[in-house]
Amino acid sequence: MKPTPSIRELFEQTRSRTEVLCQPLEKEDFVVQPVEYVSPPKWHLGHTSWFFEEFILKKRVANYREFDRQYGYVFNSYYESFGKRVVRTDRGNLSRPTVDQIMDYRAHITHAILNLLASDDDPELRELVELGIHHEMQHQELLITDVKFILGHNPLLPVYNPDYKEDADQLSQKDDYITIEEGIYEIGHANPQEFHYDNERGRHKVYLNAFSICRELVTNTQYLDFISDGGYRDPLIWHSEGWEWKSNNKIAFPLYWHQIDGTWYRYTLQGLLPLEPAAPVTHISYYEAAAYAQWRGMRLPTEFEWEVAASRLHCGSRWEWTESAYLPYPGYQKAPGALGEYNGKFMVNQKVLRGGSIATPDHHLRPTYRNFFHPHLRWQFTGFRLIQ
Amino acid sequence: MKPTPSIRELFEQTRSRTEVLCQPLEKEDFVVQPVEYVSPPKWHLGHTSWFFEEFILKKRVANYREFDRQYGYVFNSYYESFGKRVVRTDRGNLSRPTVDQIMDYRAHITHAILNLLASDDDPELRELVELGIHHEMQHQELLITDVKFILGHNPLLPVYNPDYKEDADQLSQKDDYITIEEGIYEIGHANPQEFHYDNERGRHKVYLNAFSICRELVTNTQYLDFISDGGYRDPLIWHSEGWEWKSNNKIAFPLYWHQIDGTWYRYTLQGLLPLEPAAPVTHISYYEAAAYAQWRGMRLPTEFEWEVAASRLHCGSRWEWTESAYLPYPGYQKAPGALGEYNGKFMVNQKVLRGGSIATPDHHLRPTYRNFFHPHLRWQFTGFRLIQ
Amino acid sequence: MKPTPSIRELFEQTRSRTEVLCQPLEKEDFVVQPVEYVSPPKWHLGHTSWFFEEFILKKRVANYREFDRQYGYVFNSYYESFGKRVVRTDRGNLSRPTVDQIMDYRAHITHAILNLLASDDDPELRELVELGIHHEMQHQELLITDVKFILGHNPLLPVYNPDYKEDADQLSQKDDYITIEEGIYEIGHANPQEFHYDNERGRHKVYLNAFSICRELVTNTQYLDFISDGGYRDPLIWHSEGWEWKSNNKIAFPLYWHQIDGTWYRYTLQGLLPLEPAAPVTHISYYEAAAYAQWRGMRLPTEFEWEVAASRLHCGSRWEWTESAYLPYPGYQKAPGALGEYNGKFMVNQKVLRGGSIATPDHHLRPTYRNFFHPHLRWQFTGFRLIQ
Amino acid sequence: MKPTPSIRELFEQTRSRTEVLCQPLEKEDFVVQPVEYVSPPKWHLGHTSWFFEEFILKKRVANYREFDRQYGYVFNSYYESFGKRVVRTDRGNLSRPTVDQIMDYRAHITHAILNLLASDDDPELRELVELGIHHEMQHQELLITDVKFILGHNPLLPVYNPDYKEDADQLSQKDDYITIEEGIYEIGHANPQEFHYDNERGRHKVYLNAFSICRELVTNTQYLDFISDGGYRDPLIWHSEGWEWKSNNKIAFPLYWHQIDGTWYRYTLQGLLPLEPAAPVTHISYYEAAAYAQWRGMRLPTEFEWEVAASRLHCGSRWEWTESAYLPYPGYQKAPGALGEYNGKFMVNQKVLRGGSIATPDHHLRPTYRNFFHPHLRWQFTGFRLIQ
Repeated sequence: MKPTPSIRELFEQTRSRTEVLCQPLEKEDFVVQPVEYVSPPKWHLGHTSWFFEEFILKKRVANYREFDRQYGYVFNSYYESFGKRVVRTDRGNLSRPTVDQIMDYRAHITHAILNLLASDDDPELRELVELGIHHEMQHQELLITDVKFILGHNPLLPVYNPDYKEDADQLSQKDDYITIEEGIYEIGHANPQEFHYDNERGRHKVYLNAFSICRELVTNTQYLDFISDGGYRDPLIWHSEGWEWKSNNKIAFPLYWHQIDGTWYRYTLQGLLPLEPAAPVTHISYYEAAAYAQWRGMRLPTEFEWEVAASRLHCGSRWEWTESAYLPYPGYQKAPGALGEYNGKFMVNQKVLRGGSIATPDHHLRPTYRNFFHPHLRWQFTGFRLIQ
Repeated sequence: MKPTPSIRELFEQTRSRTEVLCQPLEKEDFVVQPVEYVSPPKWHLGHTSWFFEEFILKKRVANYREFDRQYGYVFNSYYESFGKRVVRTDRGNLSRPTVDQIMDYRAHITHAILNLLASDDDPELRELVELGIHHEMQHQELLITDVKFILGHNPLLPVYNPDYKEDADQLSQKDDYITIEEGIYEIGHANPQEFHYDNERGRHKVYLNAFSICRELVTNTQYLDFISDGGYRDPLIWHSEGWEWKSNNKIAFPLYWHQIDGTWYRYTLQGLLPLEPAAPVTHISYYEAAAYAQWRGMRLPTEFEWEVAASRLHCGSRWEWTESAYLPYPGYQKAPGALGEYNGKFMVNQKVLRGGSIATPDHHLRPTYRNFFHPHLRWQFTGFRLIQ
Repeated sequence: MKPTPSIRELFEQTRSRTEVLCQPLEKEDFVVQPVEYVSPPKWHLGHTSWFFEEFILKKRVANYREFDRQYGYVFNSYYESFGKRVVRTDRGNLSRPTVDQIMDYRAHITHAILNLLASDDDPELRELVELGIHHEMQHQELLITDVKFILGHNPLLPVYNPDYKEDADQLSQKDDYITIEEGIYEIGHANPQEFHYDNERGRHKVYLNAFSICRELVTNTQYLDFISDGGYRDPLIWHSEGWEWKSNNKIAFPLYWHQIDGTWYRYTLQGLLPLEPAAPVTHISYYEAAAYAQWRGMRLPTEFEWEVAASRLHCGSRWEWTESAYLPYPGYQKAPGALGEYNGKFMVNQKVLRGGSIATPDHHLRPTYRNFFHPHLRWQFTGFRLIQ
Repeated sequence: MKPTPSIRELFEQTRSRTEVLCQPLEKEDFVVQPVEYVSPPKWHLGHTSWFFEEFILKKRVANYREFDRQYGYVFNSYYESFGKRVVRTDRGNLSRPTVDQIMDYRAHITHAILNLLASDDDPELRELVELGIHHEMQHQELLITDVKFILGHNPLLPVYNPDYKEDADQLSQKDDYITIEEGIYEIGHANPQEFHYDNERGRHKVYLNAFSICRELVTNTQYLDFISDGGYRDPLIWHSEGWEWKSNNKIAFPLYWHQIDGTWYRYTLQGLLPLEPAAPVTHISYYEAAAYAQWRGMRLPTEFEWEVAASRLHCGSRWEWTESAYLPYPGYQKAPGALGEYNGKFMVNQKVLRGGSIATPDHHLRPTYRNFFHPHLRWQFTGFRLIQ
């Protein structure tokens, strides 16, 4: 195991990695926003820099002058408490600032934070920088999934990176179940020294009934059986809203799948490839995962069941939909001010996902990590496992 | 305490009560559907009859002939498994069948079920009739709230019934808190003999931290303080989706409130009345309830906390928003076939409400009863209480 | 030829005829508004009364007290200059005032106007009453077409009136063309004594090239050929906006047509009837008429060509789409004040229709009459004829 | 007067000029599509090339191989007869092909057409190339107006070209009227040798009443009077659809105007500049022009009046809204096949504009030229003049 890097090292690595992820892109790829929930890559570049400027540099550097006063307006995201922002659906209409200007902005911010870290060893500063690093890591994953969406919805289906493998390894395809006994378990992050988000804090007891959880994720082969058996045509196995979503959007298979002359392909960051039977089914919504489980007469785990069993599961390549709604843990408190907008304000109408994916950066994950998305979204590297 | 009526008595009472509720209406009131989630009264009259015809008469009466073959199409609701249905937003466009025709349909169905009950004492029949009765009771409450919406959105603000009081009694307005100790508690319906829905079945243990819950609901006076303090203008206390909902719909006070020459009024089933300070704040969304709680530095109870404390709370006049998402209890199984569409298919993106309201019929409630609505809806008699 | 009735007789006949047209309706039929451009019958009853109250009684009767002050708000239509109005899409949500209340309102207004006519013989009053009568006649036709829409979109397809024939007579089905010579012609209404609308005033010269116009309207048989030949599938014969309209709305045949077991039927005010081959094709949009003409290598007449040829055409059963946009004649002036909203404000994006229909009341038509609708609308009794 | 260039020269100049117009742009500017009717600059580059490939090279070059088979799909515009196309609202989501790839495509097409012209002197080829040149000239104007929209809606308000003056010269601001006598006039293009579009062909007689038309366009100063006098708040001077458009879009002044600290500015291709009082009011819709005329008690000219008076008007800097709907001239025939989609399919719901603008290329204009847009659109260099 690699030693944990210092905060300064982690900061430099993270800033640099974001830029490396962008190297295969053409200038034009940085600009577009094909749907509301996908952000243009250049917005991610700017927004992750703005976060350091807004929450650290402007507060802790004497006489700090913003790189450009209008960038706060352009690169603010959901922080309602900071005046007017560019609404999400407008992001893809902004050709300026250019990619080169944003790269200058990045360099300026990176430099300023490094200077600040060199001169100030206040633990609160280190904590804020660490939060900024993890914020940027989250956006690295979004950057990858947004790039996949942008290229994967272009009729030319361009390759992002011929070496970017999406399937870490093959699944055993055996339905191998682990049994957990009934009882009281502890959930949530335990070690206050280690970085974690506010939403996983508040370690607390839950009472679980006994359950058996599958070691592996559901595979493409297994999911194809569901499709052939008419899974997308039987309303009795779907949630009402799932059925409506499926029908309105004419959904009949996972995102990025293409059937060409009777053979299934999928678009990947390496371009169009044949569907890999033993790979986990990916880019499905919660609705599809839940319908599949119902069809099998099984169900999805709750996030508590998942966390209790985590150490014995084969996981980490796909974000796994759970049955749990994204809700506050007992004793949850929002951080004061705008940072309080970070997690708590999303705690309604979303589902928790656990486990991480091949696009999740190193050092970003913990077994207690709670990711969350709306149940109809599919552009993340999502998958799921079953409980008997 | 009144003795529980027999199934035959309960059936007759319920069918009759639905019709009594409609007596103050004009023919024209039965027809309209001002928004998608409000159904025309005549649809409720037909749909509750169709339920008995579809799930009982057609299955158990030899050579049963439908009253009208097209009614299945017109009065089916969300049962996707039964062919084409009239989509909800079309219900308000149907002037036929007329109210008189639907009343004939009702009489026919009531008569046929009574005949069947007289000749057949199969317990499964009684169970299905009981389910139909409770289904109709649910629609009685919806009928009242839909009528309130229809009349309360008419510029003439007509009176429904001058004797229909919405406020059972005055609240004490003291913040009187009950404390519950940490520990394991049992949740869910325990007695298989008593009628209950599938969603409350599966009695199971939960582990709760200690908490203090208010005996009373939040009042209009208390809520007015929130309004005066700018509660509707501070994004930091709102969920992100709540803020968006509030802004898009220009929400600045509860539904049915009117400010006339500086004085607050509210539309009730008795017509326009001055706002009652000590009455519970009503017709608020989950988003508003949660923002209020955040403003107070408190929170809403989970449905488990509510159920454990229920016997000591002052409740029953308003459906109380809880923090809990509407999810299956451990071991939950959908009923087979179309009846399985009854509850399970709604278990996503909704919040649990507990406690009942002044519009809930007698014999319909239990402490384990789980009502559920989307977090933005306000046309039910909703309210909320706080937890410290 | 019947003698023209006096203004008092015409007023009484018109008021009474509106009510006679409503006799076959159920109360429920008066309420609904299935699409934005169809008004509930009870709105027509109220609006035509409001017109007399607003423009005559309130202005000319000393100390006139409105029947109900809120009716101005409810029954105003497009008159923006009169404060807040009920937006069109809300009309179908209003169950009150009831039909009985509106009938009382009508009786009150009819009585008041008759009183006024008895005591005041100012020619300007007579002119205004005449305008109100013709306004009501226009609404009689809309009432019929709106009732047809409401009943014809109900799954029970109810009969409006078993004696209401839609086809005056059979067409000869010969392509019999009339030739008009090149030259200067006069267009527009000539006789200032006779009632006419402002939009047909301003008799003026136009220069026409020679043309040949068909005596008869295009028939169902002819239109079926267009359908069989793929007329709805060939983008080259459609306007761009017509093709988009057709595709978005999945249009493949005229409104009210039904194909049942391979046979064509159409819904009429007498209920569902087999398609009559020799009857004029009806309930088509301008887009369909224009595509048909293009398919035949012909075109629609302009309104000028139509007016010049009118005396020799077989017309009066269907409103005929012309190629002409609805534009002001030379010297056109809006009436001052709110009456100026009557015609001029619609002079953009609409097409002129000429000729009248079986639903047009007696005494309402003139050869110079200019009707107008948006090119996609089909619920009027529309048809068309061709020019070589 | 410069001699008319040869077809080969005109082709080379036109292809080159398109590219010169793009020189001030950043790569990112080529990609975005902020509203449905604005196309990304890179789409214009590709589409004008595709036109030559589709209608000339593929038909006239033996064994011609498309540059890229998918470009037909990507760069086709409204030609429904050519299979699936990229719907307009998707154009701004396509980052590929890149600008460099499209420039290669352009070079390839330019080269191929020049080769063809060198080897083939068929007059029909020359005619098609001429059509392609004029098609590209039209897109040059759209390119400029689309670039203005893209930059003018960016919060940074970037300069396109510091030398691109939008106001040719100052207006005299005198209301100087020219009188035309009543009589018969000839309208339409007369010389079959000179290039013109099919929509201006069919020279024909019209009868005009006498009229007086202003020599100058309405100025910013004059329009400011309309604004100060409440022109945007008086429904009686607006078309019904204009009022709705204005209200829904909260329009209160021309596009690109900004009021900063009480002073009016306007965004131009040179950046933000103070409003020039004597310059013609620009970027207004037909609805605004018509409301202004109504406010003045005047009207807009018809396209026939404009054409008859054209030689004596001060025109050419702004496209002038006329009262005329865009309709076929007598005897109009669509070209056969897909080229027939060029003009005729738009002849509904649009208004004719006459006169050209500062963005119209040399050699592209004629007095008989009929431009057309929907009445609510403002992003072209529009203006208007009055008729008494």
